[in-house]
Amino acid sequence: MENWINAEGLKDNVILSSRIRLARNLKGYPFPNKINKETADEIIKNIEDAFYSNENSKEEFKTIRLDEKTEIEKEMLFQKHIVSKSLLKNKDIGSVILNSNESISVMINEEDHLRIQGISSGLSLKEIYENINRIDNIIEEKLEFAYDSDIGYLTACPTNVGTGVRASVMVHLPCLCITKEIENAFNAVSKMGMTIRGLYGEGSKGYGNIFQISNQITLGPTEEEIINGLNAMIYQIIDKEKEARTRLMDRYKYEMKDRIMRARGILSTAIIIDYKESMELLSMIRLGIELDLIKDISKTTLNKLLIDISLPALQDKFKDEIKNDNINFYRAIVIKENFIKRGV
Amino acid sequence: MENWINAEGLKDNVILSSRIRLARNLKGYPFPNKINKETADEIIKNIEDAFYSNENSKEEFKTIRLDEKTEIEKEMLFQKHIVSKSLLKNKDIGSVILNSNESISVMINEEDHLRIQGISSGLSLKEIYENINRIDNIIEEKLEFAYDSDIGYLTACPTNVGTGVRASVMVHLPCLCITKEIENAFNAVSKMGMTIRGLYGEGSKGYGNIFQISNQITLGPTEEEIINGLNAMIYQIIDKEKEARTRLMDRYKYEMKDRIMRARGILSTAIIIDYKESMELLSMIRLGIELDLIKDISKTTLNKLLIDISLPALQDKFKDEIKNDNINFYRAIVIKENFIKRGV
Repeated sequence: MENWINAEGLKDNVILSSRIRLARNLKGYPFPNKINKETADEIIKNIEDAFYSNENSKEEFKTIRLDEKTEIEKEMLFQKHIVSKSLLKNKDIGSVILNSNESISVMINEEDHLRIQGISSGLSLKEIYENINRIDNIIEEKLEFAYDSDIGYLTACPTNVGTGVRASVMVHLPCLCITKEIENAFNAVSKMGMTIRGLYGEGSKGYGNIFQISNQITLGPTEEEIINGLNAMIYQIIDKEKEARTRLMDRYKYEMKDRIMRARGILSTAIIIDYKESMELLSMIRLGIELDLIKDISKTTLNKLLIDISLPALQDKFKDEIKNDNINFYRAIVIKENFIKRGV
Repeated sequence: MENWINAEGLKDNVILSSRIRLARNLKGYPFPNKINKETADEIIKNIEDAFYSNENSKEEFKTIRLDEKTEIEKEMLFQKHIVSKSLLKNKDIGSVILNSNESISVMINEEDHLRIQGISSGLSLKEIYENINRIDNIIEEKLEFAYDSDIGYLTACPTNVGTGVRASVMVHLPCLCITKEIENAFNAVSKMGMTIRGLYGEGSKGYGNIFQISNQITLGPTEEEIINGLNAMIYQIIDKEKEARTRLMDRYKYEMKDRIMRARGILSTAIIIDYKESMELLSMIRLGIELDLIKDISKTTLNKLLIDISLPALQDKFKDEIKNDNINFYRAIVIKENFIKRGV
C-alpha cells in the first residue's frame, strides 16, 4: 500500500485514494460512549497486546497516544485522513496504532472499540481489504468481538452493523462539475445505496471538485460484495468524468486551457487566498496535469498542498504568527512556494 | 511635446496624456458635410500651401492622404488618438498633416475644414496650447477663417463655436473607481461645465479606469480661461485619486497588493482574454507601477498595450489569422509577450 499523499499515481488517474475501515467491538465491554478512562485503558491494553503479539506488527507499527499530542498535531492526523473526527472527540480515551507509511491506522476507542482503517493511493480497494483483513484476523485470534450469528458484527451506531465495513474512494471530478453532470452522478450513486460527500466526509463540502464515494449499506451483502459494488460504481464514474474531459477538450479546448493556465497564474501571484478558492484553483492544476497541459508540477505537490493549505497545517507551520485575519495571507505564501519556483 | 505612448512620464502621474484641438473653417466655403470632392481638394490644397509656406513646417510635418491608407491603418491612427472618428468618416475628402513624433496633427475636412490637434504626455495643456496656437497663426497669416466679431470662430457644430477649443486630459482613476467616489468626480466635473468620458470619447466606456475630462463650453471664456479652468479641475481630481490611493493602501494594503499581483498572474497566463478584462487588469498593473509595487514593467509598455490590444492593432499584426472567434486568443498572445518575458 502506498501513502496517498506521496504517491504520484497514474497521470490520468481521477482517483486520489481509496480507504476501507472495519468497525469492531470487544465482547463484554460497553461501547466507548459509555466507558470511563479506566475501562478505556483496559480496552487499549487488550487490543495492543493482541495486535503486537504478531511479530510483523511490532516492526511495522507504533502506537500514538492522542493525549500526548497537541491540538494541531491531532488535527493534522485528521487532515491526512489517518484518524477520524470521532477519535479526536474521544481524545482522552482514544489511541491509534499507525504503520510507518501512514497507510494503516488502528483506531482504538473511537465510536467503536476498534476501527481498522487502510488508505492507499489510487483505486486500490482490494489490496486495502486484504491488508486490513489480515489485521482484523490477528486481533480476532486473541480477542472475542461482539458478534451476532444472525446480524454480524455489533457496532455503536446501527448504520455500521453487520460487516462493519465502510469503503470509500476519493475522486476528482472537475469536468463533471463543469458540465453539471455531477448531479446525475450523485443520483446514480444514491440509487445504488451509496453516498457521495465532500473531501472530509459527512457535512463537508466538495471543495476543489474532490468527492468521497462510499457504501451506505453494511448489513446484508458480504464484505467482498460491498467492495466489488463500490469498485464497479467507481469505474462508471471514472468513465463519465473521462467522457466529459474528452468532450470539453474537443469543444472548448482554448477555454479549458485558459481556465487551467489562469489558475496557475493566480496561485503564483495571489497575496491573499481563501481555502475554497485555493481548492478550486488547485483542482484546475490537477486537471491540467491529467490532461498533459501542465508537465512541471507533480500530483504529489498537489496532494501535499491539500493538507498544507488547511488551517491546522498553517498553524503548525507558522505557529503564533497565524491570526484570524492573516490565514489567507499565509496560505498564499505556502501555495506560492510550490508554484513560483517553477515559474509561470 | 512628447509622444504620449512612448513617454514614461512621472512614476506617480495619474495623467496619461493631454490634448487640445482648435476647430477652424475657411471663409467662403461650405462646411465639409456640404462639399464635393473637388471643393474638398481645393480646401486641402489651400491649407497645405498656407501651412507648408513656413520653413519649419516642411521639416517637421508630412501629409497623410487617408484615401491611400487601408481601413486598419486608419483605425490605428484613431487608436493612437492622432485622428478623430469624424475624419475617418470623411475619409474620401479628408487629409491629415502629422509631425514626426505624432504629437501634432492637422486634420483637414473633418467636421470642420481644419482641426489643429496637439497631444502630449502628462499634464501639458499649456505647452500644447502654445504649439498648436503657433500652427493656427501660421495658417491664419495666409488664409481667412470664418469668424464673427461677436461670436468668434464659426464651426459646423454649434457646440464648438467661439474659441473652437476643446481641451481634454486622459486620466487613470482606479482608486476613485474602487471606492466609488468616481460618481462624485463625475458630478463635480459636470457642475463646472466640463464632461468626463471613456478612453475613446463620446459614447465610449471608461474601460480600464481611464477617462477623458474635457471642457464643454467653447463660447464665452477665452482659450486661456478654458485651459486654466480644466487644469484646475484636473489638479483637484489628481488630489482625490491620490487621497483614495493613500487611504486604500493604509486600510487594505494586502487586498490591494493581491488585486495587483493577481492581475499580473492572469495577464501572464490567460489563453483567451477580452478587451474589457484586459483593460481592467492592465489598469491594476499601472496602479501597481504607480504605487511602486511593480518595478520591472514600464508605463510605456502599458501605453503601447492600450493600442496593441485593440481590434485594429490585432488585425494589423496578425492579418488574416484574425477571425471573429479568435480575437481574444491573439490578444492574450500580445499581452503575454509583454509579461512573461519578465517572469511573474
